[in-house]
Amino acid sequence: MNFFSDCDGVTEPQGFFASGVACNIMGKNNGKLDLGVIYSKRPCTAAGTFTTNDIKASPVRYCLERLSDPKQLFHGIVANSGNANACTGKQGDLDCAKMASETARHLKVDPQEILVCSTGRIGVNLPMSRVTAGIAHACQDTIDELDGGRAFQQAILTSDTRTKSCSAQIDTPSGKITIGGTVKGAGMIQPDMATMLAFLTTDASVSPTFLKDCLTVAVDKSFNRMTIDGDMSTNDSVLFLANGFSRVDLESESSEIRSSFQDAVTQVCTTLARKCVTDGEKVTKFVEIQIEGASKDEDAEKVARCIANSLLVKSSWYGSDPNWGRIVDAAGYAKIGLDFDQFDLWYNEVPAVTKGQSLPMNKPKWKEIVSQKSFEIKINLNQGNGSAVVWSNDLSEEYVNYNKSE
Amino acid sequence: MNFFSDCDGVTEPQGFFASGVACNIMGKNNGKLDLGVIYSKRPCTAAGTFTTNDIKASPVRYCLERLSDPKQLFHGIVANSGNANACTGKQGDLDCAKMASETARHLKVDPQEILVCSTGRIGVNLPMSRVTAGIAHACQDTIDELDGGRAFQQAILTSDTRTKSCSAQIDTPSGKITIGGTVKGAGMIQPDMATMLAFLTTDASVSPTFLKDCLTVAVDKSFNRMTIDGDMSTNDSVLFLANGFSRVDLESESSEIRSSFQDAVTQVCTTLARKCVTDGEKVTKFVEIQIEGASKDEDAEKVARCIANSLLVKSSWYGSDPNWGRIVDAAGYAKIGLDFDQFDLWYNEVPAVTKGQSLPMNKPKWKEIVSQKSFEIKINLNQGNGSAVVWSNDLSEEYVNYNKSE
Repeated sequence: MNFFSDCDGVTEPQGFFASGVACNIMGKNNGKLDLGVIYSKRPCTAAGTFTTNDIKASPVRYCLERLSDPKQLFHGIVANSGNANACTGKQGDLDCAKMASETARHLKVDPQEILVCSTGRIGVNLPMSRVTAGIAHACQDTIDELDGGRAFQQAILTSDTRTKSCSAQIDTPSGKITIGGTVKGAGMIQPDMATMLAFLTTDASVSPTFLKDCLTVAVDKSFNRMTIDGDMSTNDSVLFLANGFSRVDLESESSEIRSSFQDAVTQVCTTLARKCVTDGEKVTKFVEIQIEGASKDEDAEKVARCIANSLLVKSSWYGSDPNWGRIVDAAGYAKIGLDFDQFDLWYNEVPAVTKGQSLPMNKPKWKEIVSQKSFEIKINLNQGNGSAVVWSNDLSEEYVNYNKSE
Repeated sequence: MNFFSDCDGVTEPQGFFASGVACNIMGKNNGKLDLGVIYSKRPCTAAGTFTTNDIKASPVRYCLERLSDPKQLFHGIVANSGNANACTGKQGDLDCAKMASETARHLKVDPQEILVCSTGRIGVNLPMSRVTAGIAHACQDTIDELDGGRAFQQAILTSDTRTKSCSAQIDTPSGKITIGGTVKGAGMIQPDMATMLAFLTTDASVSPTFLKDCLTVAVDKSFNRMTIDGDMSTNDSVLFLANGFSRVDLESESSEIRSSFQDAVTQVCTTLARKCVTDGEKVTKFVEIQIEGASKDEDAEKVARCIANSLLVKSSWYGSDPNWGRIVDAAGYAKIGLDFDQFDLWYNEVPAVTKGQSLPMNKPKWKEIVSQKSFEIKINLNQGNGSAVVWSNDLSEEYVNYNKSE
């Protein structure tokens, strides 16, 4: 597998075009790119995964409905930042449908062949005259086959400090296939803007079922491992389009090639998710929490998330304070029935607690580890074979300052 | 009912003595009072409620065992700050038993007649020679009947900025009875010190069963409503002693008097809990979250806690930003199956959202409300009769700064 970071992202696979334009969605007249289109002339199979928040934004409900028909093919995606089109009532649903139909009109395809994503402020209706003008412009750029992969990456950003993209290539007996992707972050988020949107493309030909299976496996190992502030948005979406432009059909390939494809998709998602967790001037640490030895995976995940979301734990990481007591306390309130006498804890490879006994002689080494920009905390509960991994980061004073007002 | 705030607390009821001494538990030689004793010559019935964290400190396990015998009577409590005696292995259990036996020896009672509480650093063994010297001193002060109610309040504090106490008096046909209490906070908590300890006393004669029932009802309406940082400690404890010194026996009183007693206990606990939520220079806002119209109380509580613990919501309160979008988003990830088209939200009495439609014309009023030091957010889910109330506060930059290292 060839792997590229910080590339054109969704336009790395053949036959995909993308664009990003400024249409002043927030009314700030600051020239920020805030609307983008992904377009493939060849019709695509598609798969998606979405927020499980009870309150789903209009575009999430729209995509869920479009993707519920396994025979539906797609030609593109329209996405905007600055306004989430969430909690916007019936007008929000009409605006979302209008974004699809306007995009379809310019690309000369059917409205149901277009998917829609929004991110930004909640509870405010979209400024549709500016949005439709932006759609016209963004569609024209893709029809003109302008090199807009990076403009699209810009257009979806809200509080992110940088664009995030990667791609993977694998060789098959029938030729080369490419998977590309880009993401905007869920973390260190501006007021009202707490959404993770990811877009994946591939020029392989992939059945909707296999595409969905691949995406589910990859998302579970990547985006679902992230936790930044424990908040889950109304708009989180991951969309994956496959246009078959490479003429490599995964149905006809060996199980080995199909497995390589899965690995490549997983690696693209993993890379994008890690970029999300570390993006933002306000994050200073990336922390991987590994829980082993739980009775079941679900229990391990509960423990990992209690630790990853504890304000006290995250504040101590920011201060480079190992503070295993806070970690143990957080693990305990997951209430999975853990026994401290069986508890082992490591910072990277250095043990801090073994069978409930602390090892203070190792403290200088832990202190050194938690002052690094990236480290692991591994816990073995010694109760069974359940395990989980969660990625987290620290909580800085700047986070609070950044999020305190509009 | 007569009610007094900021009083002698646990020594307001007759026949209780208390003390607080400095025995340098943290080794900082700063003269902070860090060990206290509550003593009643008359034997007391007792009740307690404790943390449900899987990992319980030695003194919590010790008290649970002592209180499991309904016939056991008690003469006092020894409590220390600076060290939680949690995650301290077998030595921790021995040290806890030693605290009880040393206290009993000085007070000339049986060791099993003493309860023990600790709060402070996790994972470090107690400096027992200093602790036993402190116990001798503190016991002597109570035997000498020194006026130590306020010294006891000082001795249990960790990062609290002030002592917290109150008392209630009720008249009965057989005479006056008093309930007194003090608490140390769970919030805005120093490194490793995340515990809430509350101590209640009364000079009524109360059966262990009724005492426990009263305490359970009161705690559910008070301490269990608090959420400050979503972290739950290994040491949280509420202890209640009744010594019968007033010669008023609640068993012989009317159901009306018994009900007044319950009300008084609830009001003492409510006042102490509210003091906890607002204590700390680092808290600027007290916010009551009222959820109504859930299918069941449990669902209402889930929604209330998701809102109360959301970093984004708490950061926005700190910035006096109403930001109902973040509140709705947090409500949605409680995943109780809520329908935004049925959602009503008020700031105090001012509606912000009615049946899923926002009322932006009221925005100037919301802004004014959330810039106050104390306000309410009321939500009606319009699904059923379940309700819940949770008390929260804001998240300030200073919180993170305060908690970032040892």
